[in-house]
Amino acid sequence: MAIRERVFNTIVNSFKRHGAETIDTPVFELKETLTGKYGEDSKLIYDLKDQGGELLSLRYDLTVPFARYLAMNKITNIKRYHIAKVYRRDNPAMTRGRYREFYQCDFDIAGQYDPMIPDAECLKIVHEILSELDLGEFRIKVNDRRILDGMFAVCGVPDDKFRTICSTVDKLDKMSWEDVKNEMVNEKGLSEEAADQIGEYVSMQGGMDLAERLLQDQKMSQSKQACAGLTDMKLLFSYLQLFQVTDKVVFDLSLARGLDYYTGIIYEAVLTQAGAVPAPVGGEAQNGAPGAAEESVSVGSVAGGGRYDGLVGMFDPKGRKVPCVGVSIGIERVFSIMEQKAEASAEKVRTTEVQVMVASAQKNLLEERLKLTSELWNGGIKAEVMYKKNPKLLSQLQHCEDSGIPLVAILGEQELKDGVVKLRTVATREEVDVSRADLIEEIRKRTSEV
Amino acid sequence: MAIRERVFNTIVNSFKRHGAETIDTPVFELKETLTGKYGEDSKLIYDLKDQGGELLSLRYDLTVPFARYLAMNKITNIKRYHIAKVYRRDNPAMTRGRYREFYQCDFDIAGQYDPMIPDAECLKIVHEILSELDLGEFRIKVNDRRILDGMFAVCGVPDDKFRTICSTVDKLDKMSWEDVKNEMVNEKGLSEEAADQIGEYVSMQGGMDLAERLLQDQKMSQSKQACAGLTDMKLLFSYLQLFQVTDKVVFDLSLARGLDYYTGIIYEAVLTQAGAVPAPVGGEAQNGAPGAAEESVSVGSVAGGGRYDGLVGMFDPKGRKVPCVGVSIGIERVFSIMEQKAEASAEKVRTTEVQVMVASAQKNLLEERLKLTSELWNGGIKAEVMYKKNPKLLSQLQHCEDSGIPLVAILGEQELKDGVVKLRTVATREEVDVSRADLIEEIRKRTSEV
Repeated sequence: MAIRERVFNTIVNSFKRHGAETIDTPVFELKETLTGKYGEDSKLIYDLKDQGGELLSLRYDLTVPFARYLAMNKITNIKRYHIAKVYRRDNPAMTRGRYREFYQCDFDIAGQYDPMIPDAECLKIVHEILSELDLGEFRIKVNDRRILDGMFAVCGVPDDKFRTICSTVDKLDKMSWEDVKNEMVNEKGLSEEAADQIGEYVSMQGGMDLAERLLQDQKMSQSKQACAGLTDMKLLFSYLQLFQVTDKVVFDLSLARGLDYYTGIIYEAVLTQAGAVPAPVGGEAQNGAPGAAEESVSVGSVAGGGRYDGLVGMFDPKGRKVPCVGVSIGIERVFSIMEQKAEASAEKVRTTEVQVMVASAQKNLLEERLKLTSELWNGGIKAEVMYKKNPKLLSQLQHCEDSGIPLVAILGEQELKDGVVKLRTVATREEVDVSRADLIEEIRKRTSEV
Repeated sequence: MAIRERVFNTIVNSFKRHGAETIDTPVFELKETLTGKYGEDSKLIYDLKDQGGELLSLRYDLTVPFARYLAMNKITNIKRYHIAKVYRRDNPAMTRGRYREFYQCDFDIAGQYDPMIPDAECLKIVHEILSELDLGEFRIKVNDRRILDGMFAVCGVPDDKFRTICSTVDKLDKMSWEDVKNEMVNEKGLSEEAADQIGEYVSMQGGMDLAERLLQDQKMSQSKQACAGLTDMKLLFSYLQLFQVTDKVVFDLSLARGLDYYTGIIYEAVLTQAGAVPAPVGGEAQNGAPGAAEESVSVGSVAGGGRYDGLVGMFDPKGRKVPCVGVSIGIERVFSIMEQKAEASAEKVRTTEVQVMVASAQKNLLEERLKLTSELWNGGIKAEVMYKKNPKLLSQLQHCEDSGIPLVAILGEQELKDGVVKLRTVATREEVDVSRADLIEEIRKRTSEV
């Protein structure tokens, strides 16, 4: 939990730095609100027993409740973050390191704005958070639903197969191209020719230059949708350059993302294996995109998001749209990485922040210990005292060692007479007498150094 | 949400000052875990639909899951806090300002310790939090289940009626004595004589002196249980004196509290109506108890808790007990009081913490605005920029007024040439040129003053 708190603080600080407020949406939604938003994952939604009343479900993510909230409250622009738990039913059979309840950390910008500015800010936030958390090398892949759809069109994919082919493309980070092609052709009935054409495109990665090249591409340029997406991609990269984050961002045509509600840019941040630093290659490097990124192995997605301009309108009685773009930090994965790191470094993670333990070597000083502890609390010091009448000094010191409390304030008859406290530094065993009047200041000074 | 955050911070800071760590227990519990713990309120528990798997319910409070967690993990001592939502089913008929989901803020000390020390610390924490939140006058009523049970015994209440008579006594804060007596005699079949004897006791309030007097009381002293409770009550008050909180604490024999699991001391903090400052009377005042406290009208409970030494044992296969004492802050009530206060004072509550808005009076400076904003973000400044290519200066300034952003950093061609930024204070409309190199430091200085 101590690690979790650190992670939460880093993320919330970034969200606040970008001017977001937080709103809280209920953990329950009407069942119908969630219906038809998550595709085949809908079977993972938790329904509540109908003990009289409406049909309720537990929220499956934070995005759909946010969109419902905007529509219901007629909010047309807001920047908000929300850190809360979501719930997914795991059949015992499929349980394997998957949680039934877990945190999501979402940041979203809703409102009608000039293109790609809020989108670029979302990527800047991902860059900030992943850098500050110091999780190791990472890469942010971006693509655009319009580019994907345009690509499918010019490759000869029938309109009604866009979504299903898209979800096959989405598997490219886990499956080889051969297997993906096989699924397209043999399971989804795509022509081999169309599949091969898709195969050529989805192997492309780059930066602004790739967007420029594709705008010139004979086939791609035939799709209006693709051109709109590519033009915006160029604009996005120009803003990302201003934000100085292009070193980590790569335009990757294989990125598809599963959810149906995305309408424009989509992105996903992945950690790349330690040591596998991508070598910049040729022209791509000039745009800051890691050209050889494919050489570094992805070890998992830690953030993702995109633009969803149609979702709010689905909840508005008049269908009024509110354009939105957002990002979700995969905080549970971040937690486990941080916990692994902490374990590996044998670093002792403190579970409390106690600065000082009030102790005594002599008997019958419980009242004096309580009085001093109370003084420290009143002075804003995080202090602990043993709940025993006459604890042994050794067990008091042992407790400090065990729980990482850096200081001990030791009271004895002599100290009481002299109006001082023996302040002991646990690590060095040094002891000095500090006058009682200066004690709070002294503890504050010493623990701010630590 | 901004007010909520302030309240949360105050509470968490106090919990941490007292050395608590936080643990997170799941929102789901097995239905059987919650069964039989909440008496007649059990009908308010939310059950999940049985879509295949175990019977699950949503947590009804944080205490029972905490006890289950201790037993399951064989933890014999811990100081923990937990701020999380709990769920209670509200039939449409009984809905009236009651929420289905709401926050609870719990602090608990588990472990075998010398009597009354952790109990006194819990009261100290309530005192700290209510003082810091500045909610107005408050009073903390304390009693002990053993004193209540002893009192019932010596008043001639049959053993099997203790709990039901106790829950009638619990209504004394909402009903007159006549009505309470009526319920005891006519609904619960208590003799009128027994009821009258109870009536004498439950009108008593005081401090340590009352505990002493009752220890001498001819009837009360016949109950071993009552004597044990009264002796501990004296000890408690001696610790509360050391903690300097007796000004707000009153030993009140009418305090009963509903939940079955309490085994020792119980307490409840109530806000007393503004202006109705209780006048200290006679001997009671010497012990710091507000003797005339009954003259100030209670406007609602904001915290409560007590000792529950048997609950963990109910979840342990071998019935091993872990003594616990805890307190729960009624945070939803605190929120509404704080929100009312904020409204009444016409104080504008900011929903974000943005320090500066990056603006421009001229066209075609979007890139420069983005670049400067990015510099500020990187410097840890909370900054906003309008997501428009060419917003009007007026609308940028208006946004600052509306959302309480104190500073504007204005860029123009001239400023860019001179390497400066015009820094405007929104409140005074003062503008000064600040060199770009000093900007972050200047913003930090000015907003820490605000």
